[in-house]
Amino acid sequence: MFVVECHHMRQSKLFSKTRFESPKDEVSKNADLLIRGGFIFKEMAGVYAFLPLGLRVLKKIEKVIREEMNALGGQEVFLTTLQEKELWLKSGRWDDKVVDNWFKSELKNGTQVGLANTHEEALTDIMLSYVNSFRDLPIYAYQIQTKFRNEARAKSGILRGREFMMKDLYSFSKDKKEHDEFYERSKEAYKKVFERVGLGESTYITFASGGSFSKYSHEFQTLTESGEDTIYIDEAKKIAINKEVLNDEVLNELGLRKDTLIERKAIEVGNIFTLGTRFSDALGLKYKDEKGESKQVFMGSYGIGLSRLMGTIVEIFGKEGEMIWPEEVSPFKAHLISLAGNDEEVVKVSEKLYKELTDAGIEILFDDRDMRVGEKFADADLIGIPFRIISSKKTMEKNSFEIKDRVTGEISYLNTEEIIKKYSSR
Amino acid sequence: MFVVECHHMRQSKLFSKTRFESPKDEVSKNADLLIRGGFIFKEMAGVYAFLPLGLRVLKKIEKVIREEMNALGGQEVFLTTLQEKELWLKSGRWDDKVVDNWFKSELKNGTQVGLANTHEEALTDIMLSYVNSFRDLPIYAYQIQTKFRNEARAKSGILRGREFMMKDLYSFSKDKKEHDEFYERSKEAYKKVFERVGLGESTYITFASGGSFSKYSHEFQTLTESGEDTIYIDEAKKIAINKEVLNDEVLNELGLRKDTLIERKAIEVGNIFTLGTRFSDALGLKYKDEKGESKQVFMGSYGIGLSRLMGTIVEIFGKEGEMIWPEEVSPFKAHLISLAGNDEEVVKVSEKLYKELTDAGIEILFDDRDMRVGEKFADADLIGIPFRIISSKKTMEKNSFEIKDRVTGEISYLNTEEIIKKYSSR
Repeated sequence: MFVVECHHMRQSKLFSKTRFESPKDEVSKNADLLIRGGFIFKEMAGVYAFLPLGLRVLKKIEKVIREEMNALGGQEVFLTTLQEKELWLKSGRWDDKVVDNWFKSELKNGTQVGLANTHEEALTDIMLSYVNSFRDLPIYAYQIQTKFRNEARAKSGILRGREFMMKDLYSFSKDKKEHDEFYERSKEAYKKVFERVGLGESTYITFASGGSFSKYSHEFQTLTESGEDTIYIDEAKKIAINKEVLNDEVLNELGLRKDTLIERKAIEVGNIFTLGTRFSDALGLKYKDEKGESKQVFMGSYGIGLSRLMGTIVEIFGKEGEMIWPEEVSPFKAHLISLAGNDEEVVKVSEKLYKELTDAGIEILFDDRDMRVGEKFADADLIGIPFRIISSKKTMEKNSFEIKDRVTGEISYLNTEEIIKKYSSR
Repeated sequence: MFVVECHHMRQSKLFSKTRFESPKDEVSKNADLLIRGGFIFKEMAGVYAFLPLGLRVLKKIEKVIREEMNALGGQEVFLTTLQEKELWLKSGRWDDKVVDNWFKSELKNGTQVGLANTHEEALTDIMLSYVNSFRDLPIYAYQIQTKFRNEARAKSGILRGREFMMKDLYSFSKDKKEHDEFYERSKEAYKKVFERVGLGESTYITFASGGSFSKYSHEFQTLTESGEDTIYIDEAKKIAINKEVLNDEVLNELGLRKDTLIERKAIEVGNIFTLGTRFSDALGLKYKDEKGESKQVFMGSYGIGLSRLMGTIVEIFGKEGEMIWPEEVSPFKAHLISLAGNDEEVVKVSEKLYKELTDAGIEILFDDRDMRVGEKFADADLIGIPFRIISSKKTMEKNSFEIKDRVTGEISYLNTEEIIKKYSSR
C-alpha cells in the first residue's frame, strides 16, 4: 500500500517558531516552555491548540497508551461529545449540583445537551444492546478523545484544561473476582505506560479513597513540586498514600509506618476505580449467568489524561529555556543541525545525510535554516529532541558527524552508516 | 520499539453484535446498515458513537486522508473545540443570524463560548504569531477532528451529523498565483483520496459558486440517489456543475453543452474554496514582501467529512442486509470463517491459519464462534469485509482454504503460504 507518513521535517518549513520571552499570562512551567517551543497555542485559559510539534508528542503518548490498552484486551471505540440529559438523569449526575464542571448547550429544538466529561453512562447504555449472557463478558472498551470540564480556574497550562485529551477505559465483568483480576492487570499496564513515557521512576501508585464497592481506588501520582496533590510516599516500597486515606488503620493494613513516609507534591497522571454496580444498577445492565439467573454487571473505570501527561513530562524534564523529551515521546528521534554557514560543501553533506536517514525511516527534524549557530542551538534546546546530530565543516573534515546525547552529555563521532544503525534499532 | 497494534480480532471477543432487524428510527440506508453491522450506535439524532468495527473503518479513511495531506505538504495540528466569542466577532461570524448552526455554551464566569464548526478564525489568529515575512509562506495546515453543527433536522445517519469527524486544511499563500497553484494540486490530492477509498468512479469535481476572490469553488460530489444535492454531470469530461451556477455563461466558459448534461442526485464529500483575504483582512494577517511592503495573506480552505465519507461509501456499496467495503477502508483485510462444527481437527486447522496470518501482519477478523453456518455468513455479509477465507472439513480435505472475492464472486483454493503471499502485498 502507498504510504506517506510524516517521518521527517525541514525546520525551514515548520510554521511554528520558538520565542525566547515567556508569555506574560502563564504561571505554569509547562505552558511557558510549550508555548516558547511552539508546541501549543493558547486559545483561552485552559484551552490550548496543539501545533505540529506538540501534536507529534501527543501522538507518541497516544501510541504508547493505545498499544498497552490493546495488549490488555481493550477494544477501541469513539463515543460522542454531545450527551443526552435523560441518560444522565438516570445515574443522577446531570445536575450541576452533583457534577459541577459540565459544559451544557442546547439543540435548535430547545433540548438540553451536555459535553462529555466522562462516559460511564454512555458506554453502559451501549452495553444494554450487547450484553445478554455470561458469554458476552468480560468486555474492556476504551477511547482516546477530547473531554470537556468547565473548570472555574484554569491556570496550570495543559495540566488542567477546560478541554483536554483523555484515554478512558471501562471494564464490564461478571463479578468482583473477575473484576479484581483485570484491575490488577490494569495496574501493570499503567506502570508500563508511565515507564515508556519516561515517568516510571517518579510515578507512585497511590492508595486513595474508593467507593461503595472497594475500600481504595488507585491514583498514579508523579512527584514534582508543581503538583496540586499532596501524597505520602514510601520510597523503599514504591507506594504512596493520598492524604484523604492517611490514618492508622490504613497504614496498618498496607504495612506502612508513619515515620518512613515522606510528604511530597505530585500530579495525578492516571487513576483506576472500582465502580461496582453503581452504573449497571442505575441503567439496568444485567446478564444471565450459567444457571440462567440474572446478575448485575460489575464495572471499573481507568483514566489517563494524555495532555496532562504531556504537561507533567515538561514539569519534570523542563528547565529554564530548555527541554529534553524522553526518547519515546520526543517529536522526532534526532535533530539534525546543519552548521553550513555559506559553505556549499557542508550544505551538500547535510542534505545527503538527511536524505539517507529519512530513507532509512528515521524520524528527523532537519535544521536546514541559514541562521546563526547560537540561535540554532537555543531553538534546539527549546524543542528538546534528546539526540542532536551536528553537520559542520569540522565534522566534514573528520568524515563523520557529531552526535550529542543531551541526557548524558556524551559526544561521539559517527558516519552515516553508524548513525542509521544507532537509530534504526530504537 | 515494542509494538502491539491491533491487527486482528476474534469475533467471539468483539463486543458489538450484528442485528437482523432494521432500527425503527432510521430512514437512511447508511445508518440502517451501520447499526445492524455493529459499526455505530445512535446516541441521539445526528449523534453517533463509533464502535470497534466502525472506528476501524474511520481510521482507515483517516489514514488515507492524512497520507495525502502530508504528501501535499500539510502540517498537522489539532485546534480547540471551544471558541472565543471575541475572535469570531472580528470576522462577523459569531451571530446566529450569520452562522445558524452554532452550538454555544458558557464558562463558569459567564463568558460565552462556541463549539467549533470550522477553524478559519482560530488558525488565522494563530498565524498572526508566526507569519511575518514572505519567507514564512506558504503554509498549509490541517487537522482531523470532531466538529459540531447544530443541525435543525438530522435524519441522514452519519451523512449529516450534529457532531462529525472532519479534515479541514487551510492554505496561507503570498498571492493569488501561489494560491492557485496549490489549489490545483489540492484537486489532485482530493481525487486520490476518493479513488483510494473506492469512490473514484462515482465522484465528480463540481463547479459551485465561489466568493469575492474566485468565480467558482469546487465540490466533490458522489453520485447516489440518496444524495441531497442536485448536480449536472458531463460523463465524458467527468466534471459537473452545481445547480446554483448552471447558466449559459458558465456553460460557455467551461466548454459544456446543456444537452449533454445529465441531472443527478449526489452527496458532497469534499469541497475546496478560495477564501482570498476575507479572514486575513478581518484579523489583520499580513506579511512583508521582498521589498519590505506589507501585503495581505491569501487563503483557501479544503474540507472532507470523514464520517460523511464513510456514510457515502455505505450508500454506494450497501444493499439490503449486505455490505462490501472497498479494500482500503475495510475494517479488516480478510474475514476468516471457521466452519468447524464439532470437528476438533477443523478447529485446530483454523486456529493455526489465524496464527500464521496474524504473525505475517495480515489484518484478520476471525469468526471462531460455535454457531450455525447460515448465521455466520449473514453476519459476514453485514460486516462487509471484501475477502472471505473459509476453513471447513471440505477445505481441510483438500489441504487448502476457500477464498471468496465478494466483489467478483470469484472462488479460489489456496494454501497458507499462498494466502499470505496474496494479502501481504496489498
